[in-house]
Amino acid sequence: MIEAQRLVTQLDERPLDLRGFDRPRMLLTSIVEDLKPLLELVKRPIVSARQFNRDQLLQLARLAARFETQPQLITRPLTGKILISAFYEPSTRTRLSFESAWHRLGGDIMSITDATSTGIAKGESYADIAQMLNSYGDLIVLRDANDHSVYEMLDVLRIPIINGGNGCDEHPTQALADIYALLKWNPHAFMGPDFGPPLRFGIIGIPSRMRTVRSLLLLLRHFAPAIAEIVIITDDLDPFDEHQLEDLNAAGLAIRVTDDFERELPRLDVVYQNAILWSGDGYESFGEKFRLDSEAPLKSSAIVLHPLARGPELSTSLDQTSHNWYFAQAHGAVFVRMALLSAVLKVFM
Amino acid sequence: MIEAQRLVTQLDERPLDLRGFDRPRMLLTSIVEDLKPLLELVKRPIVSARQFNRDQLLQLARLAARFETQPQLITRPLTGKILISAFYEPSTRTRLSFESAWHRLGGDIMSITDATSTGIAKGESYADIAQMLNSYGDLIVLRDANDHSVYEMLDVLRIPIINGGNGCDEHPTQALADIYALLKWNPHAFMGPDFGPPLRFGIIGIPSRMRTVRSLLLLLRHFAPAIAEIVIITDDLDPFDEHQLEDLNAAGLAIRVTDDFERELPRLDVVYQNAILWSGDGYESFGEKFRLDSEAPLKSSAIVLHPLARGPELSTSLDQTSHNWYFAQAHGAVFVRMALLSAVLKVFM
Amino acid sequence: MIEAQRLVTQLDERPLDLRGFDRPRMLLTSIVEDLKPLLELVKRPIVSARQFNRDQLLQLARLAARFETQPQLITRPLTGKILISAFYEPSTRTRLSFESAWHRLGGDIMSITDATSTGIAKGESYADIAQMLNSYGDLIVLRDANDHSVYEMLDVLRIPIINGGNGCDEHPTQALADIYALLKWNPHAFMGPDFGPPLRFGIIGIPSRMRTVRSLLLLLRHFAPAIAEIVIITDDLDPFDEHQLEDLNAAGLAIRVTDDFERELPRLDVVYQNAILWSGDGYESFGEKFRLDSEAPLKSSAIVLHPLARGPELSTSLDQTSHNWYFAQAHGAVFVRMALLSAVLKVFM
Repeated sequence: MIEAQRLVTQLDERPLDLRGFDRPRMLLTSIVEDLKPLLELVKRPIVSARQFNRDQLLQLARLAARFETQPQLITRPLTGKILISAFYEPSTRTRLSFESAWHRLGGDIMSITDATSTGIAKGESYADIAQMLNSYGDLIVLRDANDHSVYEMLDVLRIPIINGGNGCDEHPTQALADIYALLKWNPHAFMGPDFGPPLRFGIIGIPSRMRTVRSLLLLLRHFAPAIAEIVIITDDLDPFDEHQLEDLNAAGLAIRVTDDFERELPRLDVVYQNAILWSGDGYESFGEKFRLDSEAPLKSSAIVLHPLARGPELSTSLDQTSHNWYFAQAHGAVFVRMALLSAVLKVFM
Repeated sequence: MIEAQRLVTQLDERPLDLRGFDRPRMLLTSIVEDLKPLLELVKRPIVSARQFNRDQLLQLARLAARFETQPQLITRPLTGKILISAFYEPSTRTRLSFESAWHRLGGDIMSITDATSTGIAKGESYADIAQMLNSYGDLIVLRDANDHSVYEMLDVLRIPIINGGNGCDEHPTQALADIYALLKWNPHAFMGPDFGPPLRFGIIGIPSRMRTVRSLLLLLRHFAPAIAEIVIITDDLDPFDEHQLEDLNAAGLAIRVTDDFERELPRLDVVYQNAILWSGDGYESFGEKFRLDSEAPLKSSAIVLHPLARGPELSTSLDQTSHNWYFAQAHGAVFVRMALLSAVLKVFM
Repeated sequence: MIEAQRLVTQLDERPLDLRGFDRPRMLLTSIVEDLKPLLELVKRPIVSARQFNRDQLLQLARLAARFETQPQLITRPLTGKILISAFYEPSTRTRLSFESAWHRLGGDIMSITDATSTGIAKGESYADIAQMLNSYGDLIVLRDANDHSVYEMLDVLRIPIINGGNGCDEHPTQALADIYALLKWNPHAFMGPDFGPPLRFGIIGIPSRMRTVRSLLLLLRHFAPAIAEIVIITDDLDPFDEHQLEDLNAAGLAIRVTDDFERELPRLDVVYQNAILWSGDGYESFGEKFRLDSEAPLKSSAIVLHPLARGPELSTSLDQTSHNWYFAQAHGAVFVRMALLSAVLKVFM
């Protein structure tokens, strides 16, 4: 069972392409540092992707790039601060990403990893829980299957709360990670004045029933000049909420819906996939019909993004190809969360 | 769904009445500092409210008031110390309160958040678990549905243990939080030589089947001169354990039992409510018959205490009234636990 | 219910024989410090007891003895480092032992305490989880019911992983704790050139179906000159894996199988017990037939080891006898894990 070679290799000798410094360094030189936009986030709750403007997105990405490329400069500015990591809806990936970000900034953590043994299960109100948490910590990350929980807590909170996913509504920090991944990949395409030819996005999914897609589209509004078209790939005939499409169009995004996956793929620069779908009272898997693997007719320069965890829609055969940008996207999620936490608690590096 | 105004308000601009400095400051000037009584708690297990004398209660309250009013003076004296937060009976509220107190003193934490995946579930004895924990940490907080567990562990422990609630027996640190809330509210009423007119307490519940009530009554023995009468409001005909009433009477407490809720309310200075009741092999809710809301015929100066989480017995319509002292009580629970932990581990501020 | 005497005794006045300094101090003088063998463990995954050579075992034990006897010399060299404590198979004992070791070295921790609420339960691959964890922490401890999980993660990991028990395969750090307990007990018996008369070991169990026994036997290979014979006590007719016995014999270990428990006991110097047994898709208890209590016909100098938690096979009547070396074994487990973590992360004291 032992494979001797693997056990005598020093693990840090493995190739670290994902962590390579070049991409985030390019971002550092592409964006001029300006902390003023981030000051507007100090002590604010972060509930919706609607809250961010373009300057904040650029400066958060820049700060994330500093954390990624200059870890030796990170002090422990959150020493003595307590994160309440409240995952009433379990999510190891999002929870550990936030907790890792908080720990790297030096803070302590108290975790709630599921709802079954909590007051919520016994009928306690979210407002009463929020009142309690006011006294216990310095910031809350909340994940909950109900879209309204975060708003009920907000009514009584005196400490900041960050929405870590609320039902099928939003997942704003995942969208920040998506934007950071896009900016790292190709800063020049997204930033004027002389940015490159506009990009064609394909989003496989249903914007009205996927919180990651909903939040990402809200952020992409700020990069409309860089986007030639967003193609929503789905066989759902009505994939938008009321006003959702109008709002996005009003921001300058050209959006088209199709189910002709094979025809669209070769023309896309960015393909965004997702595995799960809100179905009213829980999640179902999505995307079995629209699968990507290493044989997919992708442009040679195209990248694939996915919030992970993946289902069968994203073949591991893509992992070793240049289309794999989802690992870099996941890797950057910790740094962009560090940037957001630093802004909200005003402990900029 | 977004309510823009709430998201652009800095959260710390909200009114912080509960955290106001006046009340605990009054306590600081009312009690002369004297750490000697606390030295008797050093390295002791804290299992029962019986263990505390009046001087210790006053000094713990004074120390809590220092933590509440002078957070800037808190160093991290528990750096390198490990709390074992063992909640075999889940309780998010009590667990996070202790963990927050420990973290604010600088210590690290290992948590057990339920029993189902532990050795307990496989039949391991509490003595064997205690033997193990001796080697792993510096202090244990134990919550368990069995009243005898904490005593079984005590037999082999070499590190301090604090009872965080043992079945229907006791919950001594909740009682400390109750006393701190009372002393903050009205220090002069509880402390001689010239304390004010004695107070009338109403306790809605069954002292033999509510651990919080049992522990609180034990502590109130030390303030008998300040208490005109304690009215137990219940429709249980026999609400006391054997010897319980006699012991309390012997300490000078006048106690009367009634089910005439409406008649008693207007004459009470302090009303203590509770939501849950031990029923032999679990908990049931209590108090549906004795509900408080903003229409209740309370004295204008009366305060309501409740260990929370609340059930239907305590209406949210009371939250915005001056009767609401239960939020201050909950808020103080972290500071009084900091005081107790500081005493047991001899790291006074 | 209160037993007053116990509550007024300072807990640290209790006899601390287990923690006595003499035994580990003897180890410090018996082994000459040499960190070179430990450098080969830097940044390595620790998956199998096969990975260790004799020099590494001696130096890990020596380092553990330093941690045990000179706690005041421990700085916090892992400050800013994050342990991912991933217990997809729950184990409070092993989890807290690792977490205590990590905290004592100053590091932060993120815990996964069971699999039911994780991506694993939703079908996420171990490789994808490992890819995620690369970005989140500095070292992983993995406990999993599948023997192959740790190898699947190893394929993509860039941070070290330590096997905290993989199905019925191995439990190498338990075996390190066993070796440390043996060396503390009698360093001269295990180390040349003039070591004492060879020892007779009895192992009650089935080497092919007990991960602790499998790993221990692999480590005992390095002490063959000190071992006269290992008697496997079982009523299983075929207690070895393919090649297992041959490999051990080739290393110089004399091994015999018997079910005659009563006859063997009086001739053994070391008796190793275990409570659980892998049964293909889970664990069953073992050893009801081969029970030890204070009446067992043990040599007066014999010691009993047990990885704990115990079942009925190990009577508490042995606890107060000189045969009880299992508490010292458990107590040392934290220090030997500190030694291993220090080596892998190259933060020697």
